[in-house]
Amino acid sequence: MPATQLPVAPVVKQLEKDFDGAVQRLCDLLRIPSISTDPAYKAQTRQAGKWCADELKRIGFDSTLRDTPGHPMVVAHFNPEGENGRNARSTSSRTNGSPHILYYGHYDVQPPDPLELWEHPPFEPTIVDGPQGKRVVARGAVDDKGQMMTMIEAFRAWMKVHGTLPVRVTVLLEGEEESGSPSLDPFLKANKKELSADVCVVSDTGMWNIQTPAITYMLRGLVYIEATLHGPSHDLHSGMYGGTLVNPINALCKIVGELHDKDRVVQIPGFYDDVEELSDEEKKMWKGLGFKEKEFLGGAGVKSGAGEKGRSTMERMWSRPTCDANGIYGGYTGKGAKTVIAAHATAKISCRLVPSQDPQKVYDGLVKFLKDRTPPDCRWEIHPHGINPAIRVPTESPYLEAAMKGLKQTFSKPPVLIGCGGSIPLVGSVQKILGFDSLLVGFGLEDDRVHSPNEKFELKCYEMGMKSHAAILSAFAEVEG
Amino acid sequence: MPATQLPVAPVVKQLEKDFDGAVQRLCDLLRIPSISTDPAYKAQTRQAGKWCADELKRIGFDSTLRDTPGHPMVVAHFNPEGENGRNARSTSSRTNGSPHILYYGHYDVQPPDPLELWEHPPFEPTIVDGPQGKRVVARGAVDDKGQMMTMIEAFRAWMKVHGTLPVRVTVLLEGEEESGSPSLDPFLKANKKELSADVCVVSDTGMWNIQTPAITYMLRGLVYIEATLHGPSHDLHSGMYGGTLVNPINALCKIVGELHDKDRVVQIPGFYDDVEELSDEEKKMWKGLGFKEKEFLGGAGVKSGAGEKGRSTMERMWSRPTCDANGIYGGYTGKGAKTVIAAHATAKISCRLVPSQDPQKVYDGLVKFLKDRTPPDCRWEIHPHGINPAIRVPTESPYLEAAMKGLKQTFSKPPVLIGCGGSIPLVGSVQKILGFDSLLVGFGLEDDRVHSPNEKFELKCYEMGMKSHAAILSAFAEVEG
Repeated sequence: MPATQLPVAPVVKQLEKDFDGAVQRLCDLLRIPSISTDPAYKAQTRQAGKWCADELKRIGFDSTLRDTPGHPMVVAHFNPEGENGRNARSTSSRTNGSPHILYYGHYDVQPPDPLELWEHPPFEPTIVDGPQGKRVVARGAVDDKGQMMTMIEAFRAWMKVHGTLPVRVTVLLEGEEESGSPSLDPFLKANKKELSADVCVVSDTGMWNIQTPAITYMLRGLVYIEATLHGPSHDLHSGMYGGTLVNPINALCKIVGELHDKDRVVQIPGFYDDVEELSDEEKKMWKGLGFKEKEFLGGAGVKSGAGEKGRSTMERMWSRPTCDANGIYGGYTGKGAKTVIAAHATAKISCRLVPSQDPQKVYDGLVKFLKDRTPPDCRWEIHPHGINPAIRVPTESPYLEAAMKGLKQTFSKPPVLIGCGGSIPLVGSVQKILGFDSLLVGFGLEDDRVHSPNEKFELKCYEMGMKSHAAILSAFAEVEG
Repeated sequence: MPATQLPVAPVVKQLEKDFDGAVQRLCDLLRIPSISTDPAYKAQTRQAGKWCADELKRIGFDSTLRDTPGHPMVVAHFNPEGENGRNARSTSSRTNGSPHILYYGHYDVQPPDPLELWEHPPFEPTIVDGPQGKRVVARGAVDDKGQMMTMIEAFRAWMKVHGTLPVRVTVLLEGEEESGSPSLDPFLKANKKELSADVCVVSDTGMWNIQTPAITYMLRGLVYIEATLHGPSHDLHSGMYGGTLVNPINALCKIVGELHDKDRVVQIPGFYDDVEELSDEEKKMWKGLGFKEKEFLGGAGVKSGAGEKGRSTMERMWSRPTCDANGIYGGYTGKGAKTVIAAHATAKISCRLVPSQDPQKVYDGLVKFLKDRTPPDCRWEIHPHGINPAIRVPTESPYLEAAMKGLKQTFSKPPVLIGCGGSIPLVGSVQKILGFDSLLVGFGLEDDRVHSPNEKFELKCYEMGMKSHAAILSAFAEVEG
């Protein structure tokens, strides 16, 4: 029987049978502290990439670890209709009518700090009981190691049961997603032919709730800068110099404070120029989702929420751009009191962008906003940490339909289309450089504490994720060229 | 010959002869990292106190290390007209017409960070060449270990040459001056009789320049708070929650930014209510000092300076209150980018006060200013780190005249009366609790990098300081009761 007609049911059975093994493998990967943004973890980040490349090789992929100026990429190929060797790296897609799917994930993680708030060490994955059953707690549990492994485990079960996959698959795993993806675009450009496919599947987003799967069709973009305001040549005694010259901390605060007015509207000139209002259709669709605002805000420990005046919480999180300070430091930050005027102060500032905003324009506007306010005797040192556009994925595509079908088969509730406040630089790059769209099929939950202490992934979500990918692979095989 | 008539010239000679030994002893003390504000250095802070108590005992004082709820106090007595034992702790002052002087210093130091900016390790005192001759570089070199040792070395030389001091002396050395002096007032109250004297001498201020000694007659007070703004219950993913709730860093910045208007005038209601304008006499006296603004600002690496609009740099540093953020931190402060909404952000904020401002009123006003601006879903956690008034020392006093005389004998240029932007809590407490005034005779220079990396003390200043104290001791003996 051709690979496209192989049954998925025994694959799902195999996933259930080997689920404990899948959890163990995820824990093995979670133990590697692949913190890509921190140069101190360069070796460990590479180690996590190698771990993934080795797993794919073991499953039967032609898998390689590729060096970049930053952390390495994993690229792996499996072609069910060709010998899975050199020739499988052929550049042609849709060999014999079967689609070619690019699967993307990232094996790097966010820094775990503040460490003292973790109930278990962030890199010693721990299985604990929660209201939804067992969960694994660790940095990267859901973002993105756990989600990435839902794809890899689906491949493994297909290969185990049928010795092949129902479609041609290329896998691309990145190690810099959490640090601005500096090597991604150059790598896609340099390997455009090898990475060409019909559609890209990404598991780095969320479900609507634990019963309801979701495909994310809108992602906010990101402009991230680190801005240091330099004043005096060295730290000074506040008793001697206080009041006679610009205090860089006070000045930085004033300027960061001016980024918003009292209605929390961003004050960077032109910031909202290209922002589109929601269409009536979208408004209707969003309304139909039955968003539970109280629960969403409650998950962050707040009651009323606050944001741009006159906007709903859903608009604020999906369709409105933001400007947030993600970190700030300057002067004496130890215990007790030190009467110092700091020589400099630093803020890490990021803007979440919505579709149609030009990230370069936002970056330029933000930098100009700061420089226009440079106080006397001061100068700025500004470093970009990522400039990525927002994305709207076309909702009329046979691949999206196939993914919806696979999800429908797996879950009791039908999948929904949702927006997402986060950013996945890959999606824009794939569209721009490789020329095809992405499908965001994710299995995270709102309370997974992504980027926070005690990040977790429900084992239920892990299981449903790999079963969904197994079914979606099957549904992809039916898409006609 | 009575002690009051012993000659000072051989004492000065002895100081010259033993100068290398005095430098060695200072270095021994500088090697002890007595960082009082950091609990990790509790034992070392005590060790520095014990070192001082032992030195005073060696010189011939009745010297003790006294426990407090914080770091210990050193109290030492020498009574030239009584047996220097138990009875020397008698409570009466001016025995047989000789004055009784309380000498104050502090053996604790500021934290040395940022460590990477030190050219030599902060607790490995290093003698280096500078434009004014040799200098010792170390944390505490001038503030206050070096200055404190100018007094102790003067006592040592007097005792070595004459076997006695020309006046009755009590020494009080504190270990909490750099951390808000929490134990000072309770200790003065509990030991009021033992510490009673006619005047208190403090060496913790500066000279006008290396040729011109100075007595400081005005000190700014200090209100220091640590304010943490708490928002969400834990750090959040900025992609998921950014824009939907209050970001504590942005909110803290806005509030700290609002502490000043665009003319750098402090906006705390009532802040300037009790601030007095300079008298014509003071204006004239200050003008006569020939303040070199360019050099002063140049010492901090800035050109134009900036502060409260319409005020001169001298006013800003001596007679106007200030409000400065001395430290700020929140969110991700490591390398690279982390897209987090922090659960909380903290600012260390201090106000320098001028005479006639009520520090409690300023503290209350500052706290109210913050609380009046509490954003939705947020709360403040505020800790005071010191609430001390500013001080103006009477300029018509026989002790001040005596000190001026001692300085005149030692230096080629006559001493001047100056103001100081810094705070010495002791002065207010001595006035309030013990009921007598203080004399601020200091030997620091503007470029000593007090509280900064590479703090130094010119050996010339160290030498002139101890010679001055030797001469002032002699001049005190001539003051009539």
